[in-house]
Amino acid sequence: MTSDFLADFGQMSAFGATPGGGVERQAASAADGENRAWFGSWLVDNGFTLRTDAVGNIFGLIETVPGAPYVVVGSHLDSQPLAGRYDGAYGVLAGAHAARATAAAIAAGDAEPRFNLAVVDWFNEEGSRFKPSMMGSAVFTGMLPLDTALATTDPSGTTVAEALDAIDGRGTFDGLDVAAYLEVHVEQGRELEDTGTTIGLVSTTWTAHKLEVVVTGEQSHTGAARMADRKDALHGAAELIVAARRLIDGFEPEQLHTAVSEMYLDPNSPVAIAREVRMLVDIRSPERATLETAVERLRERMSEIEQLAKVDIEIVKVVEWSSGPFLEEGILLAAAEAERLGYTHRRSATVAGHDATNMKERVPTVMLFVPSVDGISHNEREFTSDADMLAGVEVLTAVLGRVVAGDLSAAEAPAAPLSSDAS
Amino acid sequence: MTSDFLADFGQMSAFGATPGGGVERQAASAADGENRAWFGSWLVDNGFTLRTDAVGNIFGLIETVPGAPYVVVGSHLDSQPLAGRYDGAYGVLAGAHAARATAAAIAAGDAEPRFNLAVVDWFNEEGSRFKPSMMGSAVFTGMLPLDTALATTDPSGTTVAEALDAIDGRGTFDGLDVAAYLEVHVEQGRELEDTGTTIGLVSTTWTAHKLEVVVTGEQSHTGAARMADRKDALHGAAELIVAARRLIDGFEPEQLHTAVSEMYLDPNSPVAIAREVRMLVDIRSPERATLETAVERLRERMSEIEQLAKVDIEIVKVVEWSSGPFLEEGILLAAAEAERLGYTHRRSATVAGHDATNMKERVPTVMLFVPSVDGISHNEREFTSDADMLAGVEVLTAVLGRVVAGDLSAAEAPAAPLSSDAS
Repeated sequence: MTSDFLADFGQMSAFGATPGGGVERQAASAADGENRAWFGSWLVDNGFTLRTDAVGNIFGLIETVPGAPYVVVGSHLDSQPLAGRYDGAYGVLAGAHAARATAAAIAAGDAEPRFNLAVVDWFNEEGSRFKPSMMGSAVFTGMLPLDTALATTDPSGTTVAEALDAIDGRGTFDGLDVAAYLEVHVEQGRELEDTGTTIGLVSTTWTAHKLEVVVTGEQSHTGAARMADRKDALHGAAELIVAARRLIDGFEPEQLHTAVSEMYLDPNSPVAIAREVRMLVDIRSPERATLETAVERLRERMSEIEQLAKVDIEIVKVVEWSSGPFLEEGILLAAAEAERLGYTHRRSATVAGHDATNMKERVPTVMLFVPSVDGISHNEREFTSDADMLAGVEVLTAVLGRVVAGDLSAAEAPAAPLSSDAS
Repeated sequence: MTSDFLADFGQMSAFGATPGGGVERQAASAADGENRAWFGSWLVDNGFTLRTDAVGNIFGLIETVPGAPYVVVGSHLDSQPLAGRYDGAYGVLAGAHAARATAAAIAAGDAEPRFNLAVVDWFNEEGSRFKPSMMGSAVFTGMLPLDTALATTDPSGTTVAEALDAIDGRGTFDGLDVAAYLEVHVEQGRELEDTGTTIGLVSTTWTAHKLEVVVTGEQSHTGAARMADRKDALHGAAELIVAARRLIDGFEPEQLHTAVSEMYLDPNSPVAIAREVRMLVDIRSPERATLETAVERLRERMSEIEQLAKVDIEIVKVVEWSSGPFLEEGILLAAAEAERLGYTHRRSATVAGHDATNMKERVPTVMLFVPSVDGISHNEREFTSDADMLAGVEVLTAVLGRVVAGDLSAAEAPAAPLSSDAS
């Protein structure tokens, strides 16, 4: 079965393959559509019932306990532009193989299930084409209204609804009672590699603020306008990007991450000073207090930059990700299975957001990491070894077996058990 | 005739009119096409022979001296995005009215012409959609190959040839012997206003370097990558924008203008650090030595920023505009006419490039400015009073009459008289 996994992973990596060895499969792109179609066929061929909901989440269902809730396992198939092969896609395929193996064990009488099995590909986890990221799981968990998601546009004005329809990607499935959620993902950091660990037991998430900022100046002639008269929105934006980057100097190493990676200029002409720049400032920390101090300092710098560059700077939206622990019982269960199977393991924090960070607010959730070489992520050079991928599938399968058997069912879910309504 | 000019100017300002009182007629856009069509009809209705060349320059010809060279007068009809009504368009219509009046005087026997008359709308002076700016006059003067111009693409990949064809904007006209060139333009500065002067006699141009810069980093996860591992191209670009702006602190006020107003990010995702930023750094000075010192200092800063941001910064192209004097005989002639008509006048430097700065390298050229309120330019709020516009038309008409009569023909042209070949 393990070589089977690697063969499937190789096939999947051909969809949207890039010359640099990565993939580009942004949400609801043609390449994402091809990969989803291949995955749908795989599910059907392997005994799953295929269902798609109204926001394009794909489910593969195996019901062995009529009427019982489902243990859902998966991740996302979409990617960043010029991305690696592993991010998300690895977790979906690992989940599918784990569920198939678990179903086979049940069918062979080797396991006594308490719950049913579901594999999921969450739509638009990446958020590069349509904001926000983790869209499919946010709709599924009721954190984001379906209509809002479907009306969201990409930079060219195409809506999620239109983009999904173009790949025949919307369905009518609704109503899945979820008992628990499991996800394995590449680490996107270098802690596992640096410590020689194979399995990360995700125990907490970093907290993050994503500030949508609009810098407003005044359009004028790039060459002719007197310097003293200029209200240059790009100058203000550049000062702010530098200030955000330098924020980290006031904190301990790796206690604060800051970046700007997306911006839009108007009019973006070689001969007209920008009248407006819109950008996203991303600030993250393992500690809420650190984050709040950093954001406060950045706000002070914004006021200074408004004076310096003669611009207005407005924070038009703040998306906050709360930090928070993962379920302790899940961490202990995964640690026990990793130990039993002979893999090194340690608790990990996730800096990146994941569908699991949405799901853990609603149901008992277990998330595993496998190593990322050099921590390279959102890059074609992202790499995880075959051995580490297979270790992740093995531990995930073991954890899934225990959760399906009911070993987490005594755990107190953070909220009432989730009955989805994604329609 | 004066109210006639204002009525025509009002009609023209309706093409591509914006809610903020300006116009948007980027080169070969639909609005540019409508304005060009209106202007072509105006020329035909007013006795001009209409001709268009292979790069979309529009000429209106009146031949009264068979076989003689032409005195050409005009400017450009295209605009920046969300631009003012005056920039370029004023000069084209002023030239048309001046030429019509001069032809009428000749026809009435009130003037004895030595040359013929031509009005011109130079294609794509602005350069906001297609680089470089001053494209039409550059092709006409042989500074830019026609094929290069026609193959130039806008940010969406449309070529100049395709865009011109979409507005039926290419013709086959070639071969115009040019005796002299005249242009009137709004100042795009505030010196005339500040000194209470109506007519600027353009006597020199600032020198400029336009540096096309590529900043190369490495794509990674905006949140998860360790700060120490990042090679953030946008961070490097922002440091460079700030450095370019701060360059001016080392020089006397208004001796150096610097700006970045156009940039492109890859991949421009909210969750992926930019791997590449391309931008244009615009540096101008009245003094060549000042400019060279500034560029040298910026290059030193680039090396420091490469270390600081762990990026590569490459200047992939430098477009240099030489500073240079306008023809002294032309300045004196225009001064005499302004004086005779009772208008205040003074010598002006142009910071912005103009088609006249291309033409003056090849033929005797006279350029006039009229005031710009508050020096506002490339902005919907650009404003020149009706009285100042009419004063400009009056002085331009007077200068044109003298030049057509041969009053500049003894002046030594910077180069051999221009025989165009724009085909």
